[in-house]
Amino acid sequence: MADQDAQSPVGIEPPALPVLRWAEPPEGPALVLLDQTRLPTEEAELVCTDVPALVRAIRTLAVRGAPLLGIAGAYGVALAAARGDDVAGAAELLGRARPTAVNLGYGVRRAERAYREAVGKGADPERAAAVALAEAMALHREDAEASGCMARYGLALLDELLPGGGHRLLTHCNTGALVSGGEGTAFAVALAAHRERRLRQLWVGETRPLLQGARLTAYEAARNAMPYSLLTDNAAGSLFAAGEVDAVLIGADRIAADGSVANKVGSYPLAVLAKYHHVPFIVVAPTTTVDLDTADGASIVVEQRPGGEVTELTSPWAEGAGESAGGVLVAPVGTRAYNPAFDVTPPELITAIVTEEGAVSPVTRAGLAELCARSSQVTIS
Amino acid sequence: MADQDAQSPVGIEPPALPVLRWAEPPEGPALVLLDQTRLPTEEAELVCTDVPALVRAIRTLAVRGAPLLGIAGAYGVALAAARGDDVAGAAELLGRARPTAVNLGYGVRRAERAYREAVGKGADPERAAAVALAEAMALHREDAEASGCMARYGLALLDELLPGGGHRLLTHCNTGALVSGGEGTAFAVALAAHRERRLRQLWVGETRPLLQGARLTAYEAARNAMPYSLLTDNAAGSLFAAGEVDAVLIGADRIAADGSVANKVGSYPLAVLAKYHHVPFIVVAPTTTVDLDTADGASIVVEQRPGGEVTELTSPWAEGAGESAGGVLVAPVGTRAYNPAFDVTPPELITAIVTEEGAVSPVTRAGLAELCARSSQVTIS
Repeated sequence: MADQDAQSPVGIEPPALPVLRWAEPPEGPALVLLDQTRLPTEEAELVCTDVPALVRAIRTLAVRGAPLLGIAGAYGVALAAARGDDVAGAAELLGRARPTAVNLGYGVRRAERAYREAVGKGADPERAAAVALAEAMALHREDAEASGCMARYGLALLDELLPGGGHRLLTHCNTGALVSGGEGTAFAVALAAHRERRLRQLWVGETRPLLQGARLTAYEAARNAMPYSLLTDNAAGSLFAAGEVDAVLIGADRIAADGSVANKVGSYPLAVLAKYHHVPFIVVAPTTTVDLDTADGASIVVEQRPGGEVTELTSPWAEGAGESAGGVLVAPVGTRAYNPAFDVTPPELITAIVTEEGAVSPVTRAGLAELCARSSQVTIS
Repeated sequence: MADQDAQSPVGIEPPALPVLRWAEPPEGPALVLLDQTRLPTEEAELVCTDVPALVRAIRTLAVRGAPLLGIAGAYGVALAAARGDDVAGAAELLGRARPTAVNLGYGVRRAERAYREAVGKGADPERAAAVALAEAMALHREDAEASGCMARYGLALLDELLPGGGHRLLTHCNTGALVSGGEGTAFAVALAAHRERRLRQLWVGETRPLLQGARLTAYEAARNAMPYSLLTDNAAGSLFAAGEVDAVLIGADRIAADGSVANKVGSYPLAVLAKYHHVPFIVVAPTTTVDLDTADGASIVVEQRPGGEVTELTSPWAEGAGESAGGVLVAPVGTRAYNPAFDVTPPELITAIVTEEGAVSPVTRAGLAELCARSSQVTIS
């Protein structure tokens, strides 16, 4: 457990939480994952020594979270190369492990392209494998650096908006080290505030139906000895009414060109509550989340998830949790559920969007486009 | 199951759902309850032939819901009297079965007073027992009548506010026949709309942490063949944003003299969402819920419930569910939870309060007081 009194600077050091690491023991290379299906009750490592094992880990949600999946995918390609396996085949297998995960495909393609280019330039397999690994590590480092930058910009913004310090922050879903190569997005800002002794309270919404707030964010908050309390999502209202929330910090799944933010379901009602109570609502996400090809919020297609996630209570660390894996029925047989994966918050409800390139506030199309243009992220199709 | 095409008139007939009934089989009198801990998976009757059995049923939440507890308490006194048991002792036992349930004490005292007065006037025990039973039945009937009146006034208001018909209504928690001598409060209005073929959709919020919406309201909706869908509480936001909600209907735990409404946690955020989206927010509750001695919302003390209700998932039909009865931990050990039982919605967010005496809209102190003065409810201290 991190020491509450530790005064480690906010920065780009490797994350304290061993979410994912490359290992080269004598018996051969491996990707070592923190098994997220065992959280919060157990911190267990899952050692993947080949790509099929990593694919299983991705499928069972042992490793999850968009940026982290990208990093895992890149390391997976490097793992296949290091073992002398068929790299193209491994890349295809990895890319299909979770079809809707955009970042996964990005990471896989990036490492595979680096490998292919090295081979094309006459590198031997061992050298090409080293190039693929270097590319995975670069992606990992970039993500950690982006986390550090978001944390700094986010904290500066908080201090500007709330000059009194002693921030009481409300967050939703899981946006910390468990989904990132670094310390995450929205959570990283709260953690930075904590390290600077300016976090008075972190309010953690449980995030139904899959309880990422209760299982994962509360775990990260406890691990970092942050002052936090868990609440049902519907209890946020009375916190706002009582003046107990100074700002809301959330991440983003996708940001449209007009600044509309698609994020975990439950974000939009928090934005409306924040507006009604004159509380800043801050979105923290890397520029890679901004999709300039999506014009506005109405153009974002919202995925409907299986109703079983709502009508059944599933032990959260069961394999395949969230995919109606035989939980305890809590509603009558045959009950239909409305279960959107996320909701869309329009820019007029968002005080600021914080990225690794800086913050935009008020949220405008031009401001967002400028931040994205500044981004040094490697583009790969 | 009720037939969806049945055109039974909205009225004060006995409820179709056998939630609670007095029985006099040859082997002696009994109070027969629908065991609510077995819902929604099983409709099982629980036969209470003496007061200790009824006290157990109250304690284990087999029978629950404020008005229904009052009725059960009154029948309990009648049961003791009919058996020739110590009526004063039984009344004390019943009154203490759930100390915070105001209605329970009201029902118990009302039946006991009727019994005592009969005895005081020289009635023999059998005659006095009949008087107590008549009083319990009167309370039962009054509650059913109040439900019928609320349903009529509520539906008339809906039709006035939403002249197009085809109502899409959102409700929270459980306010139907399972908590009432009749068909309930908010739910009774939706049911009346359904019977008049003017309900297009009932949106049922699951109502974390104890899931009364999923377990009980969805059960009542299914039993009445209403068109309904279940949702996590935090998914209501996107329904409003999509224009899928025509009105919100909720009940009330307590209404202050200024029209502030304390109700199940999650009501207030729905009120803020409704205001933001210009959707009517309607409270349905009997005048007995109005507490003219409580000046305003700030004077209402909000009960904090055990954190285990949030940090653990408990099989909802376990005995004593909701009292941290050894569920599965979903948050790290030691996690504190903010778990208020209800929240308070101020009158400016409430379109109307509907009672058995009529509706008040806009919600004013004077309007509420007038409705209460009209009420014929028997007052007993």
